[in-house]
Amino acid sequence: MDPEQRQDGRTVSELGEFGLIRRVTEGGSRARNTLLGPGDDAAVLSAPDNRVVATTDVLVQDVHFRLDWSSPHQVGRKAVAVNLSDIAAMGAVPTGLLVGLGCAPDASAELVDGLAAGMWEEAETVGIDLAGGDMATSPTLTISVTALGDLQGRPPVTRSGAAPGDVVACAGRLGWSAAGLAVLARGFRSPLAVVGAHRVPEPPYSAGPEAAEAGATSMIDVSDGLLADLGHIAESSGVSVDVRTDWLEVPQRLSEVASALGANPWQWVLTGGEDQALVATFPEGAVPAGWRAVGRTGEGTGVTVDGAEYEQQSGWQHWRQ
Amino acid sequence: MDPEQRQDGRTVSELGEFGLIRRVTEGGSRARNTLLGPGDDAAVLSAPDNRVVATTDVLVQDVHFRLDWSSPHQVGRKAVAVNLSDIAAMGAVPTGLLVGLGCAPDASAELVDGLAAGMWEEAETVGIDLAGGDMATSPTLTISVTALGDLQGRPPVTRSGAAPGDVVACAGRLGWSAAGLAVLARGFRSPLAVVGAHRVPEPPYSAGPEAAEAGATSMIDVSDGLLADLGHIAESSGVSVDVRTDWLEVPQRLSEVASALGANPWQWVLTGGEDQALVATFPEGAVPAGWRAVGRTGEGTGVTVDGAEYEQQSGWQHWRQ
Repeated sequence: MDPEQRQDGRTVSELGEFGLIRRVTEGGSRARNTLLGPGDDAAVLSAPDNRVVATTDVLVQDVHFRLDWSSPHQVGRKAVAVNLSDIAAMGAVPTGLLVGLGCAPDASAELVDGLAAGMWEEAETVGIDLAGGDMATSPTLTISVTALGDLQGRPPVTRSGAAPGDVVACAGRLGWSAAGLAVLARGFRSPLAVVGAHRVPEPPYSAGPEAAEAGATSMIDVSDGLLADLGHIAESSGVSVDVRTDWLEVPQRLSEVASALGANPWQWVLTGGEDQALVATFPEGAVPAGWRAVGRTGEGTGVTVDGAEYEQQSGWQHWRQ
Repeated sequence: MDPEQRQDGRTVSELGEFGLIRRVTEGGSRARNTLLGPGDDAAVLSAPDNRVVATTDVLVQDVHFRLDWSSPHQVGRKAVAVNLSDIAAMGAVPTGLLVGLGCAPDASAELVDGLAAGMWEEAETVGIDLAGGDMATSPTLTISVTALGDLQGRPPVTRSGAAPGDVVACAGRLGWSAAGLAVLARGFRSPLAVVGAHRVPEPPYSAGPEAAEAGATSMIDVSDGLLADLGHIAESSGVSVDVRTDWLEVPQRLSEVASALGANPWQWVLTGGEDQALVATFPEGAVPAGWRAVGRTGEGTGVTVDGAEYEQQSGWQHWRQ
């Protein structure tokens, strides 16, 4: 898509539903998996191993994103990234996307084009496309993305397969999006390293299938925060999880931002969401390249940090910065 | 789901996101196609023929439905029906659903339960379930449904395969939803036969795969109106379509309602949407049981009625009531 060409000052109602759908679904070239693309009653995608992984996420303006903090392009990338991250967390590779967009009739075509361009850009990083979509008039800007994926013959990696004694390991970044959110919430626009991480996460997509191939016993993507999402694994698997801060680290950049804001960077690392890192459990010795150990599973229930309950407000002084 | 049990006066925010998702996705028993249901990062569905048909539709309160005209249960059924109809229009059988729901924090749990019960009821008519979902806070009640389907080894029936000389045929009802809408718009609540048709369409799901099996050359579901949707087939296939009113009929009930409202029932039959009938083209002699011929394709472009352009406002007197 050539953004210059598309910024023609028209509104969504002037484009009409079919014009809109074309703008969103024809933003790039067709991917190999898309056997029948947009323009019919439904799309047809390949499902090589006789199963399809499917997930959907709804993003609402001023709930999940703010257009004064992020550009439409960034919002589009994030809307796709959070879905692709769910596909990766099953150990699957993505095969295609469907997009439902609700927006006001007087929204600008530029907004829709920006969203579409961002969605296409993120989709193309993993070789897929926007295979179908629907547009609706809505007073609230709403982006509903469905991602489909393929398990390549492997069983899905669920949240429920962890066993006591497994190594807990992580791929991707932790705390960066939360740091960026803290910066934006104080009215700042930099440092871009953290603000950018909040605007557009960089999920380690290929680490999901690699973990599955290496024998991961459970996996989840970190959307609510490391401890909260490990809580889902602990509960589903019937194990306890202990996160070891001496195995984790606070990146230098997060420490600097935390100092500037008078914040605790460990809180970002342990409880910050939206980086869409992957966290998984592996049998001893099976942690693959690209993953770093961050803890251990055990008998029992619940999630602890260095063997103790984590207290979000007061607990930070217990760990090194 | 036992509605009595669920109507406990709580709001959506009191239930929380996970409570909400459970209410929506655990409303019935798991279908055979759902290999891994809700509660993980993504669902896993069977895709028996190595392809998956996928479609998504977004329904917005006061744009696509009104809660003073329809119950949440009816809205839920309709939200699913419009998607399943798209699957049928490809000649496919449905395999599963994903639901994204946006609603206000102070919405009642009863509303969500009603929507969920309706979605489950419609899903169960075709033997599938709600395999996954996402819930979001939104000021605007928004229902985003994604339906997946299986082609059972057949090629998809697109909009573009019609050839000159094909028979145009229809399965399902035409004009009933438009008649019901006209009744509701005048402030009436009966006759229920037409009002009910507007609230919950009854798409002829099995007619889609049956048409594909019989050799349908193109197919679409009638969501915008018979003439408008045949226009999509005409354009995509590069044919003209002539609808024959002497092959169609106005059901007695629609004539009665039209008389009472001073309306033209042919306009409902020819241009009314939302009944989710199926219209398809077949080679001469191939129209299967359950389908009725309503016209012919020819060389050229565009859609005509009895050989002439249809004029929505003034045209009605040209055709019999």
